[in-house]
Amino acid sequence: MVQIPKQHSAQPAAPHKSVPGAVPTSADVARLAGVSRATVSYVLNNTSAVRISEPTRRRVHEAAKELGYVPHAAARSLRAGHTRIVLVPTPDVPIGPLYSTFLNELQWALSRLDYTVVQYGRVGLSGDAAARAWAELRPVAVLGPVGMGADGIAVLRRSGARAVITLGPEPVEGAHALLTDHRHVGRVAAAHLLSRGHRRIGVVMPKEPGLDTFAVPRLEGVREEGAETVPLRLAYDEQDAAQVAAQVSELGLGAVFAYNDEYAMLLMRALQDAGVDIPGDVAVMGADDLMLGRLLRPRLSTVRLDLPSGQELAELVDRLVREPDQDAEPEPREALAVTLVARESA
Amino acid sequence: MVQIPKQHSAQPAAPHKSVPGAVPTSADVARLAGVSRATVSYVLNNTSAVRISEPTRRRVHEAAKELGYVPHAAARSLRAGHTRIVLVPTPDVPIGPLYSTFLNELQWALSRLDYTVVQYGRVGLSGDAAARAWAELRPVAVLGPVGMGADGIAVLRRSGARAVITLGPEPVEGAHALLTDHRHVGRVAAAHLLSRGHRRIGVVMPKEPGLDTFAVPRLEGVREEGAETVPLRLAYDEQDAAQVAAQVSELGLGAVFAYNDEYAMLLMRALQDAGVDIPGDVAVMGADDLMLGRLLRPRLSTVRLDLPSGQELAELVDRLVREPDQDAEPEPREALAVTLVARESA
Repeated sequence: MVQIPKQHSAQPAAPHKSVPGAVPTSADVARLAGVSRATVSYVLNNTSAVRISEPTRRRVHEAAKELGYVPHAAARSLRAGHTRIVLVPTPDVPIGPLYSTFLNELQWALSRLDYTVVQYGRVGLSGDAAARAWAELRPVAVLGPVGMGADGIAVLRRSGARAVITLGPEPVEGAHALLTDHRHVGRVAAAHLLSRGHRRIGVVMPKEPGLDTFAVPRLEGVREEGAETVPLRLAYDEQDAAQVAAQVSELGLGAVFAYNDEYAMLLMRALQDAGVDIPGDVAVMGADDLMLGRLLRPRLSTVRLDLPSGQELAELVDRLVREPDQDAEPEPREALAVTLVARESA
Repeated sequence: MVQIPKQHSAQPAAPHKSVPGAVPTSADVARLAGVSRATVSYVLNNTSAVRISEPTRRRVHEAAKELGYVPHAAARSLRAGHTRIVLVPTPDVPIGPLYSTFLNELQWALSRLDYTVVQYGRVGLSGDAAARAWAELRPVAVLGPVGMGADGIAVLRRSGARAVITLGPEPVEGAHALLTDHRHVGRVAAAHLLSRGHRRIGVVMPKEPGLDTFAVPRLEGVREEGAETVPLRLAYDEQDAAQVAAQVSELGLGAVFAYNDEYAMLLMRALQDAGVDIPGDVAVMGADDLMLGRLLRPRLSTVRLDLPSGQELAELVDRLVREPDQDAEPEPREALAVTLVARESA
């Protein structure tokens, strides 16, 4: 234990107001508090190895507050060799309420474990270029890097990330994989429609870019379950919905599985406006189990998706950060729970 | 202009593969490329003041790639004295499609101007404590710090932020203010309902926490326009909606302005399920102009909100960063455009 010399005097000798506009430094804080710069650093970084008296501690905090001094995270992370930053990539696609709730809960759980959650976009960057950009922040953990290969994971690992957790249909070498297999969503929807005697299923695929990551495996799931599939490309507007509704009638489709509840609502309205009875003429299913599905008439049948709880994921991050070697060859784990919610529309 | 000595040799003398698991440094890159560390730094930071031959440049990039070396943003920002980080606080409340689109566009526009957008939550932190946490990242600009006072802004400024732009109903000292006055939303809705002869208006206020920031000024706006207001607290579930629908009938309310289109849809369904005719018995209005309003029958009347374009805001950030003094005493500017969208429900 290091004994810190006391340098306190009732009146600070040096002027302590910094030049207006200048960024206050820990030297300014030391001067005002009448202590050494090392003491300022020990107090503000909560170093437990050094015992510092409560009055000194208070004086440093008061001086820091008066000057508006804030430690520099970059400088601190250079000293410590690592950060407490957990990087959560900002999704490229508009996020729904499901993911938004998950993210919020995760953020709370990580902050309680003293991590700092930073969301970082990858606009204009492909997977491995994104990895290099993210590595510059030296995160201690990275969650859910979409579309990143083994090279990208290696870059992150070499830059000090102790935990890299992917969320996706396939495990990626070097990362801890939580599998989210959206084919499963399609299979559950198809099983329900097949059980009602529909062997030929129209599958609504959004025209909006970026959503095929989820839409294509959902379509594949419907096919895998043994149904004949008819892909229906639909943009999220009323005009396109009217055209697809006409197509459904022309093709004589008796059942449609829509990408999610919002696309299901859009198509259902267009079908009803064209005089089609649901589910009498056409059965319609959505996915995600949003509130709006319960408010439709007939009530929307859908597939409910549950991501792991934010708390659970935060604990996994913390465990991997503290014991990085233990999960060097982690078992991929299925993370997406999928349940049928049968209501009235199918 | 500095002349860099060439140290190239066809075969690197020193072993260049770093210890497995060790983080590669610029010294490793220098060794592998056969150049000085200064050259590595000049090449990887794209310093234009130093002329370096194309073959040397290529060699450095190849060595960095082979070793998986990534510059340390923290170290770089310490050298440069500032970062290119633009901090956009993660909203506490689930974000709707309006804000999500705005954020996406903003991110693209800023990345084209070579800024790095970082979203940073303030879970568990109050306004000024959040400012201190954010200041640790030394952002060059901060956008939309909700609920932050003059002290928080001063902390951010002193830590090197050249642009702090608030989005809110009131200007905050020391920040560039884009005003978003949600009373205006209430006034536009009330004016429409008053013109249809409704003097007494039920105003749906979400029970969900965090939304009063917007809901209270919207209620005030309805009152300011000269209507008698009846606040109706509503949780986002069907049971609560049935109770509020009963309340609307008991109170004999002929018009309801809901917090947004989603709450309007919820209450409209409960009213219709109770046999209430819309707009015959009760006129219903929403806000936000979401797609779902167009899909309801009757079609939902609403108030459309437009935020400034992401491109516009990115250009403002860049101007303030490059010429921080020019807008030392900025004029607050109204940033929220509000338009009535009259359909069938009111």
